[in-house]
Amino acid sequence: MAQNLIYSNHVAQELDRAVEAIGPSNIVVIVDTNTKSFVLPRMQSESSAVAKATVIEVMPGDVNKNIDSLSTIWEQMQQAGCNRSSLVINLGGGMVTDMGAFAASTFKRGVKFINVPTTLLAAVDASVGGKTGINFNGLKNEVGVFNEADTVIISSTFFNTLNNQEKLSGYAEMIKHALLSSKEEYDTLLRYDVTSIDPDRMLDLIKTSVAVKEKIVTEDPTEKGLRKALNLGHTAGHAFEELSIERNSPIPHGFAVAYGMVVELILASKKLGFPTAELTRFASYIKENYGIFAFSCKEYDRLIALMHHDKKNSNASEINFSLISAPGNIVTDCTADDEEIKAAFDIYREFSGQ
Amino acid sequence: MAQNLIYSNHVAQELDRAVEAIGPSNIVVIVDTNTKSFVLPRMQSESSAVAKATVIEVMPGDVNKNIDSLSTIWEQMQQAGCNRSSLVINLGGGMVTDMGAFAASTFKRGVKFINVPTTLLAAVDASVGGKTGINFNGLKNEVGVFNEADTVIISSTFFNTLNNQEKLSGYAEMIKHALLSSKEEYDTLLRYDVTSIDPDRMLDLIKTSVAVKEKIVTEDPTEKGLRKALNLGHTAGHAFEELSIERNSPIPHGFAVAYGMVVELILASKKLGFPTAELTRFASYIKENYGIFAFSCKEYDRLIALMHHDKKNSNASEINFSLISAPGNIVTDCTADDEEIKAAFDIYREFSGQ
Repeated sequence: MAQNLIYSNHVAQELDRAVEAIGPSNIVVIVDTNTKSFVLPRMQSESSAVAKATVIEVMPGDVNKNIDSLSTIWEQMQQAGCNRSSLVINLGGGMVTDMGAFAASTFKRGVKFINVPTTLLAAVDASVGGKTGINFNGLKNEVGVFNEADTVIISSTFFNTLNNQEKLSGYAEMIKHALLSSKEEYDTLLRYDVTSIDPDRMLDLIKTSVAVKEKIVTEDPTEKGLRKALNLGHTAGHAFEELSIERNSPIPHGFAVAYGMVVELILASKKLGFPTAELTRFASYIKENYGIFAFSCKEYDRLIALMHHDKKNSNASEINFSLISAPGNIVTDCTADDEEIKAAFDIYREFSGQ
Repeated sequence: MAQNLIYSNHVAQELDRAVEAIGPSNIVVIVDTNTKSFVLPRMQSESSAVAKATVIEVMPGDVNKNIDSLSTIWEQMQQAGCNRSSLVINLGGGMVTDMGAFAASTFKRGVKFINVPTTLLAAVDASVGGKTGINFNGLKNEVGVFNEADTVIISSTFFNTLNNQEKLSGYAEMIKHALLSSKEEYDTLLRYDVTSIDPDRMLDLIKTSVAVKEKIVTEDPTEKGLRKALNLGHTAGHAFEELSIERNSPIPHGFAVAYGMVVELILASKKLGFPTAELTRFASYIKENYGIFAFSCKEYDRLIALMHHDKKNSNASEINFSLISAPGNIVTDCTADDEEIKAAFDIYREFSGQ
């Protein structure tokens, strides 16, 4: 059953229509402390479905995407008298949509849910593909299921509550999709300044971007093959993200992916002939908009160890990357050994002026 | 993807063949304290897959089918270095297969698992249909997913470790399947004494019984319609089971279902014309083999309240039953009000000589 994907800045209207089509016995809306303050009141006044829903609030941030918050959601669903005909509306960023979707997918073995992503990152990355889950015992998204929403309502109407860093973080995933799609899409995105795109134009750009992911996911829903392409930038990116957490100064996910894409395109230029001029242009763009990830050669081994923990690597003796030989030309299951990765780190540090 | 269902008393051989076809990166075997003592050693000596598997042990009993045990399984899967190409073998009764299957279905969003049920109840009831899950916050199977095993190996070879009560408990589910299937199957089962059936004949009877469930589940995998038929005896039965827990003297699941079937066939005779002579014969058979569930009219309201909590009831103002108008004639979504249920309790208590 494919999920119903709606692009609209008339969110309340679309939401009420989707809820009416489902006809749930009761509704809960899951928010975090941020969306409870900044998004929920407006939705409660505009949407009759949200107005009558029981509100379940979780603490914000990836650190709270854990089994305690999940248990709280299940408990509050019980208290709200939820049964198999209930409906969950997830109103928030990727943390809320990932965890809320997992809670809904497992409560009484599954109730329907609607995702209303409120951040650019969630709109582009977390709404499509059916990935649900929580972090567990120190590992990201360690526990979850693949399960699609009944409906996802994608809008840019809430982005005025985001700061520039949050907008840039989401835009990095859009750039990734463009790189996987075509030179044209990639060129288009590099012309915009994400911090000042008007909402309707942004919605168009998101639609184009999500279509790339949708196409890939449709061909490979459970990540056996082509879907691995979506990991572009994420193998190195996750290592940067986790190292930043170990340093107690976490960087936003999209920034980590941006730096990770530079490292992985360096590998792609070495191993697959990704054009050097394009690499230089890309690295400059990322440096200008996202800055750099600073690290020393003493941290190479730790970064590589973190990559080995990456769940997509089924063989622990080498590291698997999803690369491109040019914008739009996907090559999954490229492997690199430690020396090749270290050489790429050297070049990344040169590019970034370290 | 349909699961591979194997009926054989050469379990180790079939298991090794199934594991070889999967080709996992590593294997964990989940057991409880009982199957660790009574079943695992034999399997470790006969099956090369089990011999090299990491053993994860959980505490036995439905009370341990909870989120703490589940977390322990996830943690030990992490420690065993499990990835998406790992394989989980669940070796135990329904508690192990339900919880182990849920752990496997959610670890890194799902790894393959094989169920090797070691009790009659699990062989007949828990192996087919893809129901996985745990109890949560006082409610049975409150959290889980629908997900089928890669392979289920059904045998009667472990039943010599079961006591008569455990055998009778499983046989009640077989009688339920027979009632849903035909007069002939039902008559066949009522001729046997489950405590003394030889293993090969038992395997044949299980095969016939599971085929009934398989047929129903195939037509309705997520319990939207026909699958509700499998709840025959369970709406009243769960209430008896939960009341027995509240009294601190829990009765086996299959016994509760046996008593529940009598109550529900009383309702079926009132509402659907289920033949009275057949009802009397059935009630006598159950009384003779399973004894009776003793309760007073003061407990009627509590039993009815427990039924209202049953998750299959989407409308809390009346109670939904899956009944039959005769052996083999399924009628789902019958409703009964409190007075009708109380009248059925009266008749049950008369039948059972209370």
